[in-house]
Amino acid sequence: MKSLEERFGEILRNLREKNGITQEALAADCDLDRTYISLLERGLRQPTIGTLFKIAEALKVPPSKIIKELESN
Amino acid sequence: MKSLEERFGEILRNLREKNGITQEALAADCDLDRTYISLLERGLRQPTIGTLFKIAEALKVPPSKIIKELESN
Repeated sequence: MKSLEERFGEILRNLREKNGITQEALAADCDLDRTYISLLERGLRQPTIGTLFKIAEALKVPPSKIIKELESN
Repeated sequence: MKSLEERFGEILRNLREKNGITQEALAADCDLDRTYISLLERGLRQPTIGTLFKIAEALKVPPSKIIKELESN
């Protein structure tokens, strides 16, 4: 079974690609480093709830929707 | 306005007290340190999503419910 971080990474990548933006653009929107976005997408880091809220805002989805998707996987 | 960490801390304390358990008991259930639970409740630390999921499970609520409450405050 995939880890929580790996599943979050998949959800993040899907949402980012659905929004048609690059890792660089998302990083800029969230005031985060591009390499951190890449680490998150590869399931190598776990976000804090603060990072979750910043990313969700940049991807125009409620943070709870991302968590709900994580719960159901 | 209260920070995200402070609001999470309030929600965490309310849920823990509603469950009628001590910080020690919650820490043991989550395999976390009691002082960390105290820091979270005082809004001095932010949990990762992994910690959010462990705490939510111990408090018998879906993680998304905690995040939804955070969104609405």
